[in-house]
Amino acid sequence: MEKKEIGVIGLAVMGENISLNIESRGFSVAVYNLEKEMTEDFINSKAQGKSIVPAYSLEELVNTLKRPRKIWMMIKAGSPVDQTIDALLPYLDKGDVLIDGGNSDFRDTEKREMKLEKHGIHYIGMGVSGGAKGALNGPSLMPGGSREGYKLVEQILNGVAANVNGEPCCTYIGPGGAGHFVKAVHNGIEYSDMQLITEAYMILEQVLGMDASDLHKTFSEWNKGDLESYLIEITAEIFKKNDPDTGKPLIDMILDAAGQKGTGKWTVQLALDLGVPIPTIAEAVFARIISSFKEERVKASSILTGPPLQHNGNSKSFKYDVRDALSASKICSYAQGFFLMREASREYEWDLNPAEIARIWRGGCIIRARLLDKIQHAFKSLPDLDNLLLDPQLRKSLENSQPAWRKTLTKAMESGIPVPGLASALSFFDSYRREQLGANLIQAQRDFFGAHTYQRKDKDGVFHTEWE
Amino acid sequence: MEKKEIGVIGLAVMGENISLNIESRGFSVAVYNLEKEMTEDFINSKAQGKSIVPAYSLEELVNTLKRPRKIWMMIKAGSPVDQTIDALLPYLDKGDVLIDGGNSDFRDTEKREMKLEKHGIHYIGMGVSGGAKGALNGPSLMPGGSREGYKLVEQILNGVAANVNGEPCCTYIGPGGAGHFVKAVHNGIEYSDMQLITEAYMILEQVLGMDASDLHKTFSEWNKGDLESYLIEITAEIFKKNDPDTGKPLIDMILDAAGQKGTGKWTVQLALDLGVPIPTIAEAVFARIISSFKEERVKASSILTGPPLQHNGNSKSFKYDVRDALSASKICSYAQGFFLMREASREYEWDLNPAEIARIWRGGCIIRARLLDKIQHAFKSLPDLDNLLLDPQLRKSLENSQPAWRKTLTKAMESGIPVPGLASALSFFDSYRREQLGANLIQAQRDFFGAHTYQRKDKDGVFHTEWE
Repeated sequence: MEKKEIGVIGLAVMGENISLNIESRGFSVAVYNLEKEMTEDFINSKAQGKSIVPAYSLEELVNTLKRPRKIWMMIKAGSPVDQTIDALLPYLDKGDVLIDGGNSDFRDTEKREMKLEKHGIHYIGMGVSGGAKGALNGPSLMPGGSREGYKLVEQILNGVAANVNGEPCCTYIGPGGAGHFVKAVHNGIEYSDMQLITEAYMILEQVLGMDASDLHKTFSEWNKGDLESYLIEITAEIFKKNDPDTGKPLIDMILDAAGQKGTGKWTVQLALDLGVPIPTIAEAVFARIISSFKEERVKASSILTGPPLQHNGNSKSFKYDVRDALSASKICSYAQGFFLMREASREYEWDLNPAEIARIWRGGCIIRARLLDKIQHAFKSLPDLDNLLLDPQLRKSLENSQPAWRKTLTKAMESGIPVPGLASALSFFDSYRREQLGANLIQAQRDFFGAHTYQRKDKDGVFHTEWE
Repeated sequence: MEKKEIGVIGLAVMGENISLNIESRGFSVAVYNLEKEMTEDFINSKAQGKSIVPAYSLEELVNTLKRPRKIWMMIKAGSPVDQTIDALLPYLDKGDVLIDGGNSDFRDTEKREMKLEKHGIHYIGMGVSGGAKGALNGPSLMPGGSREGYKLVEQILNGVAANVNGEPCCTYIGPGGAGHFVKAVHNGIEYSDMQLITEAYMILEQVLGMDASDLHKTFSEWNKGDLESYLIEITAEIFKKNDPDTGKPLIDMILDAAGQKGTGKWTVQLALDLGVPIPTIAEAVFARIISSFKEERVKASSILTGPPLQHNGNSKSFKYDVRDALSASKICSYAQGFFLMREASREYEWDLNPAEIARIWRGGCIIRARLLDKIQHAFKSLPDLDNLLLDPQLRKSLENSQPAWRKTLTKAMESGIPVPGLASALSFFDSYRREQLGANLIQAQRDFFGAHTYQRKDKDGVFHTEWE
């Protein structure tokens, strides 16, 4: 039997779809799963008639592959990855390439890369975004780690990835754990994108009294403008869906307690370690957490009262205010994500290319959006751009949105609608653009109670005052 | 020579002051510092004529102490603690008590406690708050870990601690790392307290055009009411202080770039791991981080414009709006801190007593405040109170403050003043008190792109929809 071009380990939905995707691009695939039954199921159903062969041990998998072997793990992050590496290692040879396509902690990825490098094996920690559908039809791929290894799988990855204007949504991100780090940032932005849309939904529903049908129309309309994106598109679709059981809009039957798989929280923790402000992403994570305390909220809702809801006089213009508030906040949330990558790139010497990252996020992944064209353009024109907020085009858009943004927040707060994401984005904007914040008071307080010292505006040095 | 009652390791300002404090309560002290010169300096200056003796090795220190020995480490958190423990261990005997009074990670404290327990040594991880002055005159003490060890040092700790209405600000917090965890939460609340005061300062200065003298009067006045607290008190003092060099108010000469020592960030990271919403504390940490990018802000301030500042028509009533917004937000920030302790107590089975924690925070520590009387009362009346926001007295206060709170935020946002803390606190309140949030949309989106499934409002189970 002819040797296969690549092996895939892990046949949950992502691994199945990645295998089918690879095969559909003309590459032969061998697949392996720890539970034999899943391999058999896959081979006897979706993989039938395709150039996909099963392997029932890791040894068999490796022996089925052309040299240098290329193996793509699509398994749960954490110890399963280490276990698989340890079990594979005896069968691998120098020059083989091993890819981890899960959501691994980039620090784990760095350790694994160093370990495998000693054995001469090229290790690639790769972010894969796009969900099950993206995996099948073309995800956004963020490979990092061994550049030599990347060269060996580049053709396959480019074939598998989503394609925008003839360009694959895949690029070598950087050494070490860069690929998985950038994927974490992607997920953080995804969290805030979703939270901001949710706040817009609440405002439209509560202040303007929109029902699911109105919301479907509104988001469909917004998806034709600056907000065009996958998440706005599926939001419009969601509001159209009826519940077969009750005949009511399905959205109204779904429990408002959001789950999470931890990548958002983890991005916030990384940002705190690196000292980078990503407050809007943090608010999005906390908003999901608050939502999950559903029973407690139900109890509190009968005890704590808020202001009466105020329907707005001019609903048409207010609708556009909400849209502009969402657009502006979205820019701030992306600005925070790129801020985090800038600082990580400096700290870890990854030499990340923000224009390229924006480019590969334009297709395949969950946060794909028209805005990313502008972001790519911004960093392409000015590779040393400090912050997205300073790009001439985005800046103009923010300036135009400001009155609507502030009006939307006022209305929401007067009406008692929680707007942690939209408000945090505005405060981020208002903080970043201010020469003078009030932190001189914080420094004075710290020096007062803890002799932490402070700097002065008018001269260099470190100062301490006896305040009493 | 008669053996001494307690040993103190570490003679930076905190250790010096703790030693002097202990001695002033009638206990004899032996002191040790890694750098011999610091010990000599202390003995020859502040410790002169007192019942404080030097030790120039750990062996000497231990031999100078009565059995069971009681030793209080007041050294930098992290590896210095492990090094000191390892160096001390050969000289210690079963039944001795070792206290770590630094800001250690509670997980490190748990590991150290288990290690020392094997040697029969009682280990106490203790939060110490109050800064240098508190250490000297009476800090708030949060001892956790060995309860048997606590009993052996209880008398000394109670003597050293601050005293409010005849009660020492010290109580056994709980087993394991409970003491250091509670100290971390204290520091997180401290961060948000300081940030909220800073936002009030910016609003008063920018919207009402107050100068340092007006601000001194305003904060002095506020310190006589519900906001009475150490941080408001020192804020009033700070605004009174003139710079001897320029004759101007010193506050206006201090650089607005806030530092941090990491305990706030760490509290946020812990909350994310435990899945507890503390968004206002997170915003306070990020606000310090943004302030530290001073050069970047200066640059951005010449490029990004905001709305014109709007001075308020009725400055007197607006001043009280700001005060009420600050009061209400402060309640929310404390509610978040106690929420975090509640969940940690459940997760780690610490059986924390929130009324007792509120009680010992009423004196000695940085966040001491009149509000803590109310919090103590709230948890004493209803030990199973889910959340501080639901306490009848605090709830009433929040309800009375709501119009002013919302008005203050509107004014700040219209004026382009960043209010991440105040806005986050309001959104927390508005989220917690809502039966229905928009997270049903987030669940629908997650199910749409990732088949993550959702729950329904009308029936139990886990559901997935084919959305397309």
